[in-house]
Amino acid sequence: MENIIIDYKEKPDLKDPILIEGLPGVGNVGKLAAEHIIETLEAVEFASIYSKFFPPQVLIDDEGVARLVSNKLYYSIAKENEKNDMIFLVGDYQGLTPEGQYELSSVILDMLEEFGGKRVITLGGWGIGNVVKEPRILGAATNAKMVEEMKGHGVIFSKDEPGNGIVGASGLLLGLGELKGMEGVCLMGETSGFFIDPNSAMFIVKILAKILGRDINVDGLAKKSEEMDAVTAKLKEMDEMPEPNKEDLRYIG
Amino acid sequence: MENIIIDYKEKPDLKDPILIEGLPGVGNVGKLAAEHIIETLEAVEFASIYSKFFPPQVLIDDEGVARLVSNKLYYSIAKENEKNDMIFLVGDYQGLTPEGQYELSSVILDMLEEFGGKRVITLGGWGIGNVVKEPRILGAATNAKMVEEMKGHGVIFSKDEPGNGIVGASGLLLGLGELKGMEGVCLMGETSGFFIDPNSAMFIVKILAKILGRDINVDGLAKKSEEMDAVTAKLKEMDEMPEPNKEDLRYIG
Amino acid sequence: MENIIIDYKEKPDLKDPILIEGLPGVGNVGKLAAEHIIETLEAVEFASIYSKFFPPQVLIDDEGVARLVSNKLYYSIAKENEKNDMIFLVGDYQGLTPEGQYELSSVILDMLEEFGGKRVITLGGWGIGNVVKEPRILGAATNAKMVEEMKGHGVIFSKDEPGNGIVGASGLLLGLGELKGMEGVCLMGETSGFFIDPNSAMFIVKILAKILGRDINVDGLAKKSEEMDAVTAKLKEMDEMPEPNKEDLRYIG
Amino acid sequence: MENIIIDYKEKPDLKDPILIEGLPGVGNVGKLAAEHIIETLEAVEFASIYSKFFPPQVLIDDEGVARLVSNKLYYSIAKENEKNDMIFLVGDYQGLTPEGQYELSSVILDMLEEFGGKRVITLGGWGIGNVVKEPRILGAATNAKMVEEMKGHGVIFSKDEPGNGIVGASGLLLGLGELKGMEGVCLMGETSGFFIDPNSAMFIVKILAKILGRDINVDGLAKKSEEMDAVTAKLKEMDEMPEPNKEDLRYIG
Repeated sequence: MENIIIDYKEKPDLKDPILIEGLPGVGNVGKLAAEHIIETLEAVEFASIYSKFFPPQVLIDDEGVARLVSNKLYYSIAKENEKNDMIFLVGDYQGLTPEGQYELSSVILDMLEEFGGKRVITLGGWGIGNVVKEPRILGAATNAKMVEEMKGHGVIFSKDEPGNGIVGASGLLLGLGELKGMEGVCLMGETSGFFIDPNSAMFIVKILAKILGRDINVDGLAKKSEEMDAVTAKLKEMDEMPEPNKEDLRYIG
Repeated sequence: MENIIIDYKEKPDLKDPILIEGLPGVGNVGKLAAEHIIETLEAVEFASIYSKFFPPQVLIDDEGVARLVSNKLYYSIAKENEKNDMIFLVGDYQGLTPEGQYELSSVILDMLEEFGGKRVITLGGWGIGNVVKEPRILGAATNAKMVEEMKGHGVIFSKDEPGNGIVGASGLLLGLGELKGMEGVCLMGETSGFFIDPNSAMFIVKILAKILGRDINVDGLAKKSEEMDAVTAKLKEMDEMPEPNKEDLRYIG
Repeated sequence: MENIIIDYKEKPDLKDPILIEGLPGVGNVGKLAAEHIIETLEAVEFASIYSKFFPPQVLIDDEGVARLVSNKLYYSIAKENEKNDMIFLVGDYQGLTPEGQYELSSVILDMLEEFGGKRVITLGGWGIGNVVKEPRILGAATNAKMVEEMKGHGVIFSKDEPGNGIVGASGLLLGLGELKGMEGVCLMGETSGFFIDPNSAMFIVKILAKILGRDINVDGLAKKSEEMDAVTAKLKEMDEMPEPNKEDLRYIG
Repeated sequence: MENIIIDYKEKPDLKDPILIEGLPGVGNVGKLAAEHIIETLEAVEFASIYSKFFPPQVLIDDEGVARLVSNKLYYSIAKENEKNDMIFLVGDYQGLTPEGQYELSSVILDMLEEFGGKRVITLGGWGIGNVVKEPRILGAATNAKMVEEMKGHGVIFSKDEPGNGIVGASGLLLGLGELKGMEGVCLMGETSGFFIDPNSAMFIVKILAKILGRDINVDGLAKKSEEMDAVTAKLKEMDEMPEPNKEDLRYIG
């Protein structure tokens, strides 16, 4: 079989589309953000990506139907007062090996080129080890001009954050994209790294809406964030409760 | 050398054959079931599969003869009152790497296509952590129609079982098969996950006989199951026995 | 670069040569045996094998000269009263990955075919966990006729020894060789598995001399074996000595 | 994508250039030495090497600009009274896998051949487990004549140092180079193995200057070395300080 198969349902006619990547990663921040926008903008699925670089696995839905693990491509056409058509890349997994990661990112950039795209925005989380209510959105871009543009939208560029660079699709789509003459930015929402983080995703979507010149409702993520808060509050409470019967046990021991 | 070699003894003339996979896995449930049917139906070996994705190893039989690890293909021709010809896939190992797993499943589906097959049934175990006398047979299928068909034969489709999907050949043959326009189902017998489980295999064979419209005697598996019960009962007994001479040792210490 | 490079110094004219493999393995039994025969028969090096499946490493000799890790091929021409020309395969490493192991064995068998060879003898150790003075030489062959032939030379074929088959070049050269219509045997000298074992290698050479119909002096291995015995005796002695000051320490504690 | 991409800014006209490799390794001795010479001689960057054998990662500079991890090639033209043009190989990473290491070294030697080069000097550290003020520079060369030449410049060739040979690019560029008819030497500066070691790098540069017949100022490395000494002295001091409140804590416990 081919290393990577892009299975098209449709080849949409797109005008200068921006690629927005939100694959699984730290806190699933990028994935939550991209999936939210796809849902809110009613973006249209147009292709599935299968690859031997993904795990050898099928997933099963609630009706018992199995499907091969994949990445998916969606598009959203800009309305009159909006700036850009968009392609979204989301999915179950990133490539399992470094070589697989390079191959997948390279094939996805070829796809973007075919649709006339020249810009990439990758979304991710940046694990900082503690919970923050108002996460900063950190950035890294492929050139100084784009750094300035992103600062204008409130993206933070901070020396040594993140210190080790960006690993995986969010990094490679920028790095390999630049070799193809594309430009791009990675937006990283601060997140604890312990839980999936819809709050950090919400802050990413807010800033992304400004960058894209699109109005994107964030109510869905706000609600998911409240639900997560309830869960973590509960967990914290349980943690702080005195252990039951500790006194009594002492008398037995 | 080629990545995968299918070495044919014979190219049988098959009519719309169903592929039945039973490679090693949890409790060896699928392997035991498939090997039992091959023996009972006196299916005919027609090809060996060798691959650099298998371990670099030969196995030695009781006479001292070594043979390269492999998968094997068998066929069974339907009798007049029976529905389908069948191809069985069994063997020593699954592919060692994710990429190898994809390659092997892909090549096997090409083989099935060549013989005019359009249907895949994969067999496996689902580890639940405790012993069950009457294991349920859980299923996952490639489309809703097949889910309904299988429910009619007593296969259980249960939300979140198994929660992580299906990994390995039992999953890939369905997932990759669907991309080729085939349909399929995976039958998973509940099993403890601690022992090989001929009892679970027997329950799979019973349901598979109904699906295939074939009469398949299960006496062999029933007997193996009783033998396993005797072994595990013995082990349990030994575990519950007081440790010998514990009293005496105390005086020495 | 190519996956595997066979760099020939010379392409000797060989008559029906037997391939004898002695690569590193358990107790280095095969390696010691093959290297001893090469030295004793003054076999001639005719090719080096380099491969990206070996470690990325150079070794340095006592004069400070570095050379890339490799396998080496030697040949020995039969004298009038002797039966077969021989090719020896020895070297620094086996392939690092299963796929590399398959590729290397396959290329080596192609080489043997090119020189008109049809027979393979692989040498190895079989770790049994304790030291034996008179190790048995166990065997596994590619067909029943060869099993009988080898029994005639004193090779032991014992059910379930070794139980897991043979892993690595010693197994693959037989298994893949058989697919090419070659026949072969693996000779495994019992060995503790804790030390390199020239004694076990000596017993292999004795039996191999009979199989090959060649007179091979084993004095070198006998001497190395005595040296090893002296070393292990020393180690054992040190182990059995009372720990110094144990009494005294008791008073301090 | 291709496995390895050499992206040339410029194809300089070089006369019999020597390749000098200083990739990351033990104590980063080779990397520090090569980067120092590049800076001091104002060598000119002429190509970037990208590869799927590197980690799937971008690094971010202080201004927030991301770039794909890479190796870089620089050249330096000899002045009238100097002997050789030089090509320097430095970078973020070595190949992640053995196969990747072979591929990368092979492609780099093809590049050297294209520029007419026949000589390779690789730089590295040799971890000895303790700090040395006056590290020896150990060597391994591809032939006895080059060993003699290097001894003349003060390089030490010492039996069994390093005992396991040389792993990675510093070894492979010699080993694979020799297969292409090139000659080479690896210079290894003694280093503790615990810290990056500019002092060891300085001793390498001093000896390399003699080998190359070039005047290379080492002030920069001398200064870095002093800074490192200050840091390690501080660490040692902290280590030797009595633990605070140990006395007091005893009374509480």
